[in-house]
Amino acid sequence: MRIILASASPRRRELLEMLNVRRLEIIPARAQEQLHPELSPAELVRELARAKAAEVAENNPDAVVIGADTVVSVDGAVLGKPLNEKDATRMLTMLSGRAHEVFTGVTVIKNGAAQSFVERTLVHFREISEEETRAYVATGEPLDKAGAYGIQGLASLFIDGIEGDFFNVMGLPLCRLGLILKTLGVNLL
Amino acid sequence: MRIILASASPRRRELLEMLNVRRLEIIPARAQEQLHPELSPAELVRELARAKAAEVAENNPDAVVIGADTVVSVDGAVLGKPLNEKDATRMLTMLSGRAHEVFTGVTVIKNGAAQSFVERTLVHFREISEEETRAYVATGEPLDKAGAYGIQGLASLFIDGIEGDFFNVMGLPLCRLGLILKTLGVNLL
Repeated sequence: MRIILASASPRRRELLEMLNVRRLEIIPARAQEQLHPELSPAELVRELARAKAAEVAENNPDAVVIGADTVVSVDGAVLGKPLNEKDATRMLTMLSGRAHEVFTGVTVIKNGAAQSFVERTLVHFREISEEETRAYVATGEPLDKAGAYGIQGLASLFIDGIEGDFFNVMGLPLCRLGLILKTLGVNLL
Repeated sequence: MRIILASASPRRRELLEMLNVRRLEIIPARAQEQLHPELSPAELVRELARAKAAEVAENNPDAVVIGADTVVSVDGAVLGKPLNEKDATRMLTMLSGRAHEVFTGVTVIKNGAAQSFVERTLVHFREISEEETRAYVATGEPLDKAGAYGIQGLASLFIDGIEGDFFNVMGLPLCRLGLILKTLGVNLL
């Protein structure tokens, strides 16, 4: 069975490789990661995940296609990837010393049938100083990540704890995704 | 500044390498990971972490020495590493469909002065079938890990969510460890 990840995210790819997914192909969807202010974070990631998976599934009807999208939500603001270092600093300052939510939408399509869900994880940041923020932004790690941090990188030093699925924060909630793949005959264990 | 990890755990080593710890040395302590039934899980890991760090610090007084020990606790039972495949199956069966606690004790010693703490994370397993347990044990992943699972491996498929520090479950609570290292002049950011 061909399995296609409709995302260019290196983290998602690493996670599927960690699960020894065989015959994994990467075909990033061209769907734009636009923010739609009228949608809630959960609605937004659900819609973007669906659009990514649908676009790639159209040309690959025989494959299992996985689409996903992740955003950070804090105080009603939705944070995608930062535009530049200044934007990353702004986002990290918003996250310091408090909790925020991470939403990942996932859609899996096979033979035209779609299954979708949205996973939410709460992430607690300790207070981080301006100096720490500056040093972290200078590493470049925040720049390609929703909310401007990588929980599996140096931002681990900022995170007291989480509530929910850790891998959701990395961009792919593995436990629920694994259950869906199982219903499609893809057994990872 | 020399930094010594007094543990043979490849996961702990990977985590410190992820943080770009410079001049990291690995000198595993010979201290036995014995279970002391009279101690609570928190007391046990505190004592073992202290013993490991103290043993290595004695011969390396100029270095920052990190000792750590991790156990899983469920229903008052303390689970260390499984003895064999049968023992791993027994542990995973205990963990299925419920929450358990993971405790890591950490001691950092420099110039004879020790700082210690114990971190606790709650881990929620979904129900796992006998077939899944058998397949997971057959991968060999459980055999060298406290509680017979690796959260950063295939067991990610079993774990609905956690409450607390994810890296604590991997064996080293990075956020609090980073704060202690900072007090000793080791800035990771």
